[in-house]
Amino acid sequence: MKGISVILIFAITFQSCRSQDTVERKIIVSDEAPAPLAFYSQAVQVGHTLYVSGNLGMTRDGDLVDGVTNQTKLALDNIGHVLTAAGISFDNVVKVTVMLKEIEDYAAMNDVYASYFTKKAPARSAFMAASLPRDAKVEIEVVAIVGHIVDVEDSESIASKNGYVVLLLILLQGSTIYRTLAS
Amino acid sequence: MKGISVILIFAITFQSCRSQDTVERKIIVSDEAPAPLAFYSQAVQVGHTLYVSGNLGMTRDGDLVDGVTNQTKLALDNIGHVLTAAGISFDNVVKVTVMLKEIEDYAAMNDVYASYFTKKAPARSAFMAASLPRDAKVEIEVVAIVGHIVDVEDSESIASKNGYVVLLLILLQGSTIYRTLAS
Amino acid sequence: MKGISVILIFAITFQSCRSQDTVERKIIVSDEAPAPLAFYSQAVQVGHTLYVSGNLGMTRDGDLVDGVTNQTKLALDNIGHVLTAAGISFDNVVKVTVMLKEIEDYAAMNDVYASYFTKKAPARSAFMAASLPRDAKVEIEVVAIVGHIVDVEDSESIASKNGYVVLLLILLQGSTIYRTLAS
Repeated sequence: MKGISVILIFAITFQSCRSQDTVERKIIVSDEAPAPLAFYSQAVQVGHTLYVSGNLGMTRDGDLVDGVTNQTKLALDNIGHVLTAAGISFDNVVKVTVMLKEIEDYAAMNDVYASYFTKKAPARSAFMAASLPRDAKVEIEVVAIVGHIVDVEDSESIASKNGYVVLLLILLQGSTIYRTLAS
Repeated sequence: MKGISVILIFAITFQSCRSQDTVERKIIVSDEAPAPLAFYSQAVQVGHTLYVSGNLGMTRDGDLVDGVTNQTKLALDNIGHVLTAAGISFDNVVKVTVMLKEIEDYAAMNDVYASYFTKKAPARSAFMAASLPRDAKVEIEVVAIVGHIVDVEDSESIASKNGYVVLLLILLQGSTIYRTLAS
Repeated sequence: MKGISVILIFAITFQSCRSQDTVERKIIVSDEAPAPLAFYSQAVQVGHTLYVSGNLGMTRDGDLVDGVTNQTKLALDNIGHVLTAAGISFDNVVKVTVMLKEIEDYAAMNDVYASYFTKKAPARSAFMAASLPRDAKVEIEVVAIVGHIVDVEDSESIASKNGYVVLLLILLQGSTIYRTLAS
């Protein structure tokens, strides 16, 4: 029994260390979103991070819809399908890049864009490209988080919450083990 | 006492596993930097990664300053305010994207840019956009790391340092537990 | 012996907690790829993530080669040298950004591009810039993963595999410790 205990402690620690050097990758595929135009995946998840490819306002049949408002809606809907396939939603998006063909379309894109995010606004960069694939009016790329997101208030340190709980448990464990061994 | 010990070991391991599936998100807000122009956050921190939105050389009153040199300075100052709000500095920036309106401004932007980074140069991409929001001359986006950064030399493996310490501790612990249980 | 055991458990847990707040950074340098044109690193590794700077189809002597096909090849070869310096290959690339000068070059770039990736296609965004540094025809930036990548099938949850193993080990350990202490 004593030997098994030691072996198990080794096994757990080894498994824990091994998982630190391993990154799991998952190719995300949605049949609801248009197929890629070239050799790329709709999205790639590595660990908690989901990289979603640049999306156009294109139907599954490969047709661009008319106007920047419709294209922005459809590009975001396509992104939504990919997020769903990854098991998440727009609430998990943390960074967006918006590429526009025409500077005049900035306000119209913004109007549609805001309606897709109900919670925390992601970080974002926007710029006007000389042109976009398929001569699209807008292309949108996002980075999202797969997993359970805990929103931390501005005054808290992200690391501290978990740290305090673990520290408390360590102190309790230390004293318990000491008394157990000393008894 | 023995039961408590087992419960505590369970609790620590559970807490440790739970934190692996949880990603903490923090919206970073700086009153020193201009308010966002649309529905986006100045920066979003997820785990250790800080995504800072594209910044312009714009005052808090929303006015662009004159010329690419001044705009680059102010854009970087605005990023600096956001980094400060996240508890870090330019030393923590690991990736930059620079968007310029005019190719002629590349050298002038570079001169200002280099003065903001005193330690390790981040990775960077730069390109000329057809145009930028507010008809700005430059827009700068960064990815930074929140937390204690340890700079590793080229010859070392990043994972190995920690691994050796943990391995040594495991071996010591194993032999100690074994002797304790066997005594 | 009992005291040493407690100290070691503390030390391992402390080391484990400390490593959660620490991010290791490594500046990646390849002598095979052209030197940076300005103040930036060829690539920066933070934890498992490698940010590779935008690469041009430029020789080590700083000369652009002719045509988009050659430039795409050389830009990707340069990226390959940087990946090699980081100990990885194109199989570890998860996100790519392709910037083109001319929309007409999209198909030719795609042909070359696809030949560099043998396994899982990364996520990708592509757009046409107004112009690129050195008046290049193409600039390519990648994000890659340093470490052991495990490809997970679509139906599996990334977290679950590891979770099940650890959970099983915890249950076994719990019962073993309990019986050891109770004996």
